[in-house]
Amino acid sequence: MNNKPTPGVRFKENRAEIAVWAPHAKKAAIVLNDGNMLDLNPKDHGYWVLNTPALRPGDGYRFKLDGGEPLPDPASLSQPDGVHGASRAVDLHQFNWTDTGWQNPDLEQYLIYELHTGTFSQAGTFDGVAEKLGYLKDLGVTAIEIMPVAQFPGGRNWGYDGVFPYAVQNTYGGARGLAKLVDACHQHGIAVILDVVYNHFGPEGNYMGSYGPYFTGKYHTPWGDALNFDDAWCDEVRHYFIRNVLMWFRDFHIDALRLDAVHAIKDFGAKHILKEIRENVDELMAQTGRKHHLIVELDLNDPIFIDPAEKRGYGMDAQWIDEFHHALRVTAGEKRDGYYSDFEGIAHLAKSYNSAYVYDGIYSPGRLKTFGAKANDNPGSQFIVFSQNHDHVGNRMLGERSSKLFSFEMQKLMAGAVMVSPFIPMLFMGEEWAEPNPFQYFVSHTDPELADAVRKGRKAEFASFHTEEEAPDPQAVETFNSSKLQWDLLNKEGHRQMLGFYQALIRIRKQLPALATLNRKNLKTIVNETEKTLLLQRWHGGQSVFCLMNFSDGERPVSFPENAACSIVLNSADTEWNGPGRAAAGYIRPQSIIIYESSNV
Amino acid sequence: MNNKPTPGVRFKENRAEIAVWAPHAKKAAIVLNDGNMLDLNPKDHGYWVLNTPALRPGDGYRFKLDGGEPLPDPASLSQPDGVHGASRAVDLHQFNWTDTGWQNPDLEQYLIYELHTGTFSQAGTFDGVAEKLGYLKDLGVTAIEIMPVAQFPGGRNWGYDGVFPYAVQNTYGGARGLAKLVDACHQHGIAVILDVVYNHFGPEGNYMGSYGPYFTGKYHTPWGDALNFDDAWCDEVRHYFIRNVLMWFRDFHIDALRLDAVHAIKDFGAKHILKEIRENVDELMAQTGRKHHLIVELDLNDPIFIDPAEKRGYGMDAQWIDEFHHALRVTAGEKRDGYYSDFEGIAHLAKSYNSAYVYDGIYSPGRLKTFGAKANDNPGSQFIVFSQNHDHVGNRMLGERSSKLFSFEMQKLMAGAVMVSPFIPMLFMGEEWAEPNPFQYFVSHTDPELADAVRKGRKAEFASFHTEEEAPDPQAVETFNSSKLQWDLLNKEGHRQMLGFYQALIRIRKQLPALATLNRKNLKTIVNETEKTLLLQRWHGGQSVFCLMNFSDGERPVSFPENAACSIVLNSADTEWNGPGRAAAGYIRPQSIIIYESSNV
Repeated sequence: MNNKPTPGVRFKENRAEIAVWAPHAKKAAIVLNDGNMLDLNPKDHGYWVLNTPALRPGDGYRFKLDGGEPLPDPASLSQPDGVHGASRAVDLHQFNWTDTGWQNPDLEQYLIYELHTGTFSQAGTFDGVAEKLGYLKDLGVTAIEIMPVAQFPGGRNWGYDGVFPYAVQNTYGGARGLAKLVDACHQHGIAVILDVVYNHFGPEGNYMGSYGPYFTGKYHTPWGDALNFDDAWCDEVRHYFIRNVLMWFRDFHIDALRLDAVHAIKDFGAKHILKEIRENVDELMAQTGRKHHLIVELDLNDPIFIDPAEKRGYGMDAQWIDEFHHALRVTAGEKRDGYYSDFEGIAHLAKSYNSAYVYDGIYSPGRLKTFGAKANDNPGSQFIVFSQNHDHVGNRMLGERSSKLFSFEMQKLMAGAVMVSPFIPMLFMGEEWAEPNPFQYFVSHTDPELADAVRKGRKAEFASFHTEEEAPDPQAVETFNSSKLQWDLLNKEGHRQMLGFYQALIRIRKQLPALATLNRKNLKTIVNETEKTLLLQRWHGGQSVFCLMNFSDGERPVSFPENAACSIVLNSADTEWNGPGRAAAGYIRPQSIIIYESSNV
Repeated sequence: MNNKPTPGVRFKENRAEIAVWAPHAKKAAIVLNDGNMLDLNPKDHGYWVLNTPALRPGDGYRFKLDGGEPLPDPASLSQPDGVHGASRAVDLHQFNWTDTGWQNPDLEQYLIYELHTGTFSQAGTFDGVAEKLGYLKDLGVTAIEIMPVAQFPGGRNWGYDGVFPYAVQNTYGGARGLAKLVDACHQHGIAVILDVVYNHFGPEGNYMGSYGPYFTGKYHTPWGDALNFDDAWCDEVRHYFIRNVLMWFRDFHIDALRLDAVHAIKDFGAKHILKEIRENVDELMAQTGRKHHLIVELDLNDPIFIDPAEKRGYGMDAQWIDEFHHALRVTAGEKRDGYYSDFEGIAHLAKSYNSAYVYDGIYSPGRLKTFGAKANDNPGSQFIVFSQNHDHVGNRMLGERSSKLFSFEMQKLMAGAVMVSPFIPMLFMGEEWAEPNPFQYFVSHTDPELADAVRKGRKAEFASFHTEEEAPDPQAVETFNSSKLQWDLLNKEGHRQMLGFYQALIRIRKQLPALATLNRKNLKTIVNETEKTLLLQRWHGGQSVFCLMNFSDGERPVSFPENAACSIVLNSADTEWNGPGRAAAGYIRPQSIIIYESSNV
């Protein structure tokens, strides 16, 4: 860890340590809520600092550069009045943690539940999440992944429009609310993954440009100029994000970060920013004795991101595998357009079981270029798979979950396909009871022009689709409200059985060593493209598990394993799971999965 | 090697194999010089091909897309009428090679002489170069490096404004002239390095955009949009450059390529284009049994470019080390502005002897960021050093060579400093006789507006320098002519002795195993910053060589090696080299180098 000041306000021995980076300013001051103004002192590399007892925890403040308008702190920990308001000083030491006995499990033990705080509960707060921890523990997941909580404009947003990476969304419950939730998770034996966005800032309330060269025109991203990770002054921008990582782990006891779309982090320098984050996290772990994981969303199929430093990798612990999702959904009947166009169904699903990446150095017709490299030596615990997530649900015009797109039986098959994989499974909130509500794209910009632009952009994006229906208005409160989970469905017919099926799947995955051990070498697939069946065999020690998946609409003969003494561990067609009941011996129902166990192999 | 067609025209069994990539065209045809037009046939990935006896070697031709204007071939081998004229078909098999006995030496044996074909000889042609091969052999260099020869606008250009990477500049002698020169070099035991530009196209005569997406707006470079190495359709752009590499090696018997400014090649894909070039060259070498080297100009100080594939490197054989040049020249008295501002003189020179990279992960005040990584495990033969080159001479407003900027004694010291390094030395044409003519920036654009813009740009660039003098007009023929070498100086007083000194230096470097063996581990430096002296010790087997360099203006005591029995191998102050003569025993003259040999260490 370098000795640059931590950006923002920290409290030590009843004094505030204030630091802000403004390399082009000639003068910098902090403006207190009572109107008093204190000059900051210039330091190396463009930092301005002050150690003062005049700012107290809970006080509002802003910074003033060269006599300009007072602005919120780029490293604000709290924005009680939203993105345009004053920042509020927070003493991160004031929370009383009760999780001293907590030990973050290895990634291999992770079973992830992705949730959006605003729509997970009726309250839409961290407290609302905390109320359901007992439920999640019973479900069997071992980690929740919280969609981004960095302060965004208004109260309704997926979180990817955050503009204060250090501030926890005020409407969710702020820093204290998040700390309370993490503490409660640890009491329930649940790890916490936080989704963080280091590749762009949202379009409203981004005051970074007034402070310094946080962005560079060297690279284009879908959101405009790239964050400056390798241009002049990048050391300080890198420092800003590295300290942000360390804050979540050290001060909020977060167990793992999920770094959004790291392919949009452009860094041609000799040390990639992710590698530097890794080194800093390693140092922190050595200091505290606690374990933390770094997970990335990555659309490059390049194992350099997840390989360890010894292999010149950036050392990320795991990455999302969207290609498994795409292959699975096309196999299940999803229309092959947009990003699904590159996926051929069941052969690609089998490839993903075997190779994680489908495009691992082969030509991608969708991208019009050869894409990816092989990741054959990376353990299964480095790959996170799912049959739906916020993105692939919410990026549909109507935000339909699988429950609205696939039959009840197919939903169970898809869940099974994820759960028997040699990778880390992730659920998207509500899928375990086939929540019928959509998860739509919603915002609450306070700038009316921007709100209008987003609304129009969304309409234009879907102009050529679903002509019979209209894209929901992202700015409308109803779009947000209709995306909330309906917890009262939990005990309703169908939903109850789906939940039971998920619980059974999770229990089986944990109990059978052949499934729980994420050894990619002990794995075989047999695909029948005509019959649309896939047999996945995994083994560990003396145990072998055969997972037979029938994605077709017809019954199929079970043609394996000819000489093994197998017993059925789970059959998704069972009436217990609201299915049609088992097929005759030697057959598998349409759209179903059977898991067999054998100890004779 | 993939099975995509080789771009351009190749002859096989008296038929022309024609291929052009134009993925967005609906129709493509070749227009022959007699006005006849033949349709090309569409192939996968946007190629258009034709196999025909109608086009003969020597015939002119152009391509016509969708009925538009006929345009020259992007992979033209010959542009007899310049960049805007028709292309001419060339049969690359027609040259009678006489170099069957030639073996390209290992890089460790390279001693490079960089030359610009247009200004090296009065004729300004490949034949003009060939005439001096006896001279170069006597000088002792083992390789010439030819500045880019890809067809550029007009007849006067450094070569970095090339727009036909496959066509050899017509005014130099074209493809046949180059082949003849290479053959002659090999007869003289001299290897040939060709400078190639894969990071941009020149501003005039670039028809690439009419054919396909050769460029991408994803990245900015100093020349505008970057060449497309990782965006949609990049496979075909990569193929275009890979085949270009293979052509130089296979069809022109080029021994090594020097790839211009590879830091401006932007490729975030899972397989870097340089790595793919390496793989293709390896395949070619396995086929032919010939050896070829890949050298890069690199301003990133990142050894991933030169590390082998086993270390996940891109596998380039060697790179230029501009930082050695900068450190050396600041030590010799160069003013610390522009790119020299980051260099502190003698300590940095010593660092470069030890570490190759000066900025190897430390903060660079000039770049305002931490820069580089360590390259401690790379052999000395991977680094090319020099005290001047075309860039650092020609980028000065007046293009002065060292001869105009440093004393005669200092020039000898600088030459010595390069020649005793554990790296590969490179000379810039004429420095070996202290050529007083400048090497200025010159162009000969045929577009008057562009010529004017370049003229104005050059003036503006130097507006704040040397206010007493004017930037020479790049478009003026005198600027070009005054940059030519004056071979008649060779026997003149001063020049003759400088040449003798270079010959002696080169001979000593080759003869002493401690110098010839580029082992970076057997090396020690002792710096005295106050006295401005540097002692470089290198050893091999039982031999040790001590190189004492005095960059100061005063005599300095020789305080080493106290107990070793050393003999002086070379003293740059000797009258033989037009120096002031040796200092008294135990002293070294100002601005001089003494090389001692000892076999007792």
